[in-house]
Amino acid sequence: MIAPLTIKVHADDNVAIVVNAPGLPPGTVFPDGLVLKDFIPQGHKVALAEIAEGAPIVRYGEVIGTAVHAIPQGGWIEESLVRLPQAPDLFSLPLATNVPPPKPPLEGYCFDGFRNADGSVGTKNVLGISMSVQCVAGVMDFAIDRIKKELLPRFPNVDDVVAIDHAYGCGVAINAPQAVVPIRTLQNLARNPNLGGAVMVVGLGCEKLQPDRLLPEGAAAETSIVSLQDESHVGFGSMVTAIMEMAEKRLAELDRRQRQTCPASDLVVGLQCGGSDAFSGVTANPAVGFAADLLVRAGATVMFSEVTEVRDAIHLLTPRAATAEVGRRLIEEMDWYDRYLNAGETDRSANPSPGNKKGGLANVVEKALGSIAKSGSGAIVGVLSPGERADRKGLLYAATPASDFVCGTLQLASGCNMEVFTTGRGTPYGLAMVPVIKVATRTELAERWFDLIDVDAGRIATGQATIEDIGWELFRLILEVASGRKQTWADHWGLRNAMTLFNPAPVT
Amino acid sequence: MIAPLTIKVHADDNVAIVVNAPGLPPGTVFPDGLVLKDFIPQGHKVALAEIAEGAPIVRYGEVIGTAVHAIPQGGWIEESLVRLPQAPDLFSLPLATNVPPPKPPLEGYCFDGFRNADGSVGTKNVLGISMSVQCVAGVMDFAIDRIKKELLPRFPNVDDVVAIDHAYGCGVAINAPQAVVPIRTLQNLARNPNLGGAVMVVGLGCEKLQPDRLLPEGAAAETSIVSLQDESHVGFGSMVTAIMEMAEKRLAELDRRQRQTCPASDLVVGLQCGGSDAFSGVTANPAVGFAADLLVRAGATVMFSEVTEVRDAIHLLTPRAATAEVGRRLIEEMDWYDRYLNAGETDRSANPSPGNKKGGLANVVEKALGSIAKSGSGAIVGVLSPGERADRKGLLYAATPASDFVCGTLQLASGCNMEVFTTGRGTPYGLAMVPVIKVATRTELAERWFDLIDVDAGRIATGQATIEDIGWELFRLILEVASGRKQTWADHWGLRNAMTLFNPAPVT
Repeated sequence: MIAPLTIKVHADDNVAIVVNAPGLPPGTVFPDGLVLKDFIPQGHKVALAEIAEGAPIVRYGEVIGTAVHAIPQGGWIEESLVRLPQAPDLFSLPLATNVPPPKPPLEGYCFDGFRNADGSVGTKNVLGISMSVQCVAGVMDFAIDRIKKELLPRFPNVDDVVAIDHAYGCGVAINAPQAVVPIRTLQNLARNPNLGGAVMVVGLGCEKLQPDRLLPEGAAAETSIVSLQDESHVGFGSMVTAIMEMAEKRLAELDRRQRQTCPASDLVVGLQCGGSDAFSGVTANPAVGFAADLLVRAGATVMFSEVTEVRDAIHLLTPRAATAEVGRRLIEEMDWYDRYLNAGETDRSANPSPGNKKGGLANVVEKALGSIAKSGSGAIVGVLSPGERADRKGLLYAATPASDFVCGTLQLASGCNMEVFTTGRGTPYGLAMVPVIKVATRTELAERWFDLIDVDAGRIATGQATIEDIGWELFRLILEVASGRKQTWADHWGLRNAMTLFNPAPVT
Repeated sequence: MIAPLTIKVHADDNVAIVVNAPGLPPGTVFPDGLVLKDFIPQGHKVALAEIAEGAPIVRYGEVIGTAVHAIPQGGWIEESLVRLPQAPDLFSLPLATNVPPPKPPLEGYCFDGFRNADGSVGTKNVLGISMSVQCVAGVMDFAIDRIKKELLPRFPNVDDVVAIDHAYGCGVAINAPQAVVPIRTLQNLARNPNLGGAVMVVGLGCEKLQPDRLLPEGAAAETSIVSLQDESHVGFGSMVTAIMEMAEKRLAELDRRQRQTCPASDLVVGLQCGGSDAFSGVTANPAVGFAADLLVRAGATVMFSEVTEVRDAIHLLTPRAATAEVGRRLIEEMDWYDRYLNAGETDRSANPSPGNKKGGLANVVEKALGSIAKSGSGAIVGVLSPGERADRKGLLYAATPASDFVCGTLQLASGCNMEVFTTGRGTPYGLAMVPVIKVATRTELAERWFDLIDVDAGRIATGQATIEDIGWELFRLILEVASGRKQTWADHWGLRNAMTLFNPAPVT
């Protein structure tokens, strides 16, 4: 067991979090003389000085709330004692006022990937089969099952066959203004680098979302679409045969591809967190942020996301926008989401979850301050609306809901060929299309979930490793996984979450 | 080939639809002297008399629109010539003014079902495994795969293991007013009669929707929930083992059940249409309506649904409401949906789909008039909001979106143990939890999809069968399928659409 330990993040903080599991009892004395007044669970906050009623509670050097009543020095700052502050006003934010200068380029880092005709690079070689409407799912599942059993074994260079399965396509307000989001998401999912430009679509025929809208540019409808209502299909068997025949041609093409050496700048890495706790912002997320800086220095594309988990720290991001225009785009995405939540008669306090709170996060402000640590310290050079494809290198903000699987689906649409996912409470999250590296915020979780967690960032809290150590470890692991030389635990077990579209428009 | 044939539905109609495939050429002469001016595709409308510009176009005895310009006798009433009328005003509708008297009871019709402790009856004996959040899907899929391979074969009286897989549970505004819809849907899905009251839940631990909220009343959390973050689970294998051990106990319980003779009044039949065409309202839907009347006479529960496909015919339904209160509930549901579409900057004209139009349906008014034929001729005795469980026998209106898979999921939550689905364009629709009987509106489709369509109602259009004939055929088939003596084509091939929640609240 380690000695009683707390972590204070910033010199101005009047709170620290308890490192020891499951917590520390009242009477615990720290080297600096602090004595605990209450039992304080692991990850939860202790008052480093008396905090008067109404006074600010400061963590990360930022006000995370005000005290509902006076809290003594050494007292437990339980969630109910923290009054949620107003979110930062969006229309008085500094734009590009503190743009971080570029760091020295990192040269010579490479991985072995599958280069595509459009210049993108896959980290896997996957046959993607999309659908224009959920109606066809039964037939498609039946066909894919047979493709995996009967065809895939004959094409050893192809890693997998993945259905772009979704609930969109018909029974939706396809001309509503917000329908642009799910439609471009589906279009861009089909262009994910790991699908090698070889996507095919199974359609029904009568649906609102006509299948040719899902084809990548230049793909021929007649060789890329199987439409079940087509009069050439007599009976179920002929539908299945048509899908299998098209898949076989695609598999033969994909099978001829070989991995080749590609610079690290061909990586497009999506960053996410889920099941966060109070350690997320001091262990896993800063380590991911350090790796993000390394990736950017190596010329790669890195995207962070999750509007509700960024909203309350937006004043720390707009100064880092590379230009005022990028800053304005950040604000636009926050504002859109404020209005979206407001229309649904809710607000940002719907986040965090019970588990986040159990893990020590008092509210969405504290969660956001920890969440943005994933973005590292570089300039934000671009902003993507939900489902838009990344159009430049460097650090991007890809606006998405915070829901893990919705965010993951949108990052896939934005073109990521790798995901890094941090978790404090633990989640078995995985994606079919790209590898997901999972990073634990606490050693206890990494040890208990020894065959689900890829990197233990909890060593930062106990002083066994630095943020830099774990950042470099992660950077090197990303290159190994991208090359197919190492497998993530999610891929080892075949863990895949559903692709889940973000559809802010009505269903009909 | 049959002789040139049209169908006029109501004495007041000034249009009829062409029966012959693929259509009839200009110059075609009918026995009554009508001569076609244009080529008119199958299912499309011919003007029986000249229709002046701005004059009403009448089908089913109802105005489906007004003529954009003058249409000659024998001319094709192409979709673009029909101006969409205003929807019926909701607040001046007659309520319970024309309540159909009860028809003579039908005695002695039975099926062999699985009777449950709560009085409901299953038509299958299925182990349902629910999840409190999508995060656990990877582990759950892995476990279910093993359960199906290793355990299910040892329990021959159990038909299947079904995951209640969904995208809800976290990253959602769980306290938003409309969150009540997805939450009660999940709660009621777990109570579907075909799951025998034996549902179990896989949870994560940190999610907003805590797993005990999904348990049927009386179920003990400790024997019904596997929570992956529970500290007793060390490694992936122990999670899978825990799920399998719980499933094995449930399978053993379910396996002891036997089918027993149950009156037809224990049926809860959901009615739906998808991929409709102009024949839907004259062949398949009226036949289903006749069967619905038989089911109600036998004491069963029958529900019809799909707000946007009922909205424009609501003035024909409120008079049939059994009481003024039921009429008001119908209006409430229509009004809610008007406002929901309005908030999304869209309206009812988002329906119909391109395929509906190709099949001859000019607009949502014509579609709705055909759609409500499924409800038969009886009194409407109750109205369910989306996902509410049926609480009485007789003909109910279960308000749902028209989207096939969303409607199907909500009807399962409402407790249906059987679905009947009509289609004109063709869809391979199926559900994992209950049997789906598919009825074609046209013989051409029934013949081409010979191993997907269960009943050919197209014979009504060609005069080979009456609505009554097909209605009785369907009624008897429902009893056979409910007894497990006949299998639907969807079950034969194992065709299952995704369970798709209706969530009108924001995601976060």
